Amino acid sequence: MVTLHDNLGSGNAYKVRLILAHLKRPFRRIEYDVTKGETRSAKFLTINPNGRIPALEFEDGRVLVESNAILFYLAAETDFLPSDAFSRAQVMQWMFFEQYSHEPNIAVARYWHHYIWDEVSTDAVRMSALDKKMEGGRDALTVMDNHLRGNTYFVNDAFSIADIALYAYTHVATEGGFDLTTFKNINMWLERVAAQSRHVPIIRDNFEQFG
Amino acid sequence: MVTLHDNLGSGNAYKVRLILAHLKRPFRRIEYDVTKGETRSAKFLTINPNGRIPALEFEDGRVLVESNAILFYLAAETDFLPSDAFSRAQVMQWMFFEQYSHEPNIAVARYWHHYIWDEVSTDAVRMSALDKKMEGGRDALTVMDNHLRGNTYFVNDAFSIADIALYAYTHVATEGGFDLTTFKNINMWLERVAAQSRHVPIIRDNFEQFG
Repeated sequence: MVTLHDNLGSGNAYKVRLILAHLKRPFRRIEYDVTKGETRSAKFLTINPNGRIPALEFEDGRVLVESNAILFYLAAETDFLPSDAFSRAQVMQWMFFEQYSHEPNIAVARYWHHYIWDEVSTDAVRMSALDKKMEGGRDALTVMDNHLRGNTYFVNDAFSIADIALYAYTHVATEGGFDLTTFKNINMWLERVAAQSRHVPIIRDNFEQFG
Repeated sequence: MVTLHDNLGSGNAYKVRLILAHLKRPFRRIEYDVTKGETRSAKFLTINPNGRIPALEFEDGRVLVESNAILFYLAAETDFLPSDAFSRAQVMQWMFFEQYSHEPNIAVARYWHHYIWDEVSTDAVRMSALDKKMEGGRDALTVMDNHLRGNTYFVNDAFSIADIALYAYTHVATEGGFDLTTFKNINMWLERVAAQSRHVPIIRDNFEQFG
């Protein structure tokens, strides 16, 4: 059974739990408290030298990191990754968009608002950086909403790992202070993703049910 | 012939020129001045709604954006992308590392130092953000240098698009104020990449020679 080095509140880790649920693949998980620096311990750095969860450890000891690379690996040869080359590249395009233009704004704004607000709200430099993140996050949501006008999912009107990658932090963007009400197409897409038959929520205590 | 929406100084655009050179694939290019907002014009936003170069436009009008997704598409079924599933996922892992932990620090520090220094150096918030980017960039370089201890390239000791993605901004990191002298393994790897037979430098005027 694979082991997920995990954090229940993390959208990046949630992506991996979500694809594992869709694939009906059992897994064991180890929880890390990011706010206490548990992903920077000497022991964890042997698992991921870059000091970040999620990391997926296989039965033979091999480890894969970077949430979207893990999605790519687990989705290979399944319906969650298109088989034709251009569509597959479009999935990658949206996953790189997610890690570059979306997550650094929306996930970080959520982390600051939700986990370390006392620290951020008294720091003028971070408050100024937060303004830029809110603006960048709204820009990313606008790109998504426009694309979803007339598209049910991000690539080929079929649910794929591009949707999983973008769903993770979009559906909790309100926790980062973003107002989603005006993004009508995003809201309809969020409902479609959540209506998938094996969908699981971001925080779930009873992980033994998986698989 | 494909058309590259390009910027000669951009490492992200250079990645695409580099893989096209390695693949001996002719292309035409259109130059955009990022500092003048040319990638945010109404016309360009119909090519990439996210307002960024590079964008690769195919003969039939289809467009692919996100430098690493373009690398992935062009390298499919070539020696620049491993054929086995796990190695391929490791290539993706390093490309996501590049876009999340490397480029936002090293490329942005270079852009600030090299292109808009007057604006940055008089802005206390940005100068403070720059300190964090320098620290994050050194962390990313340290992860790379440690990995390259005993590895000639990033995955399977074979030159791949992971190396192209990481080479783009690493080899010009000094332009962002980074000191590369202590990263011995990175320096040897930079030499190996530059010694590849069809290697081209980041700025090259005579693009007609390609192909």
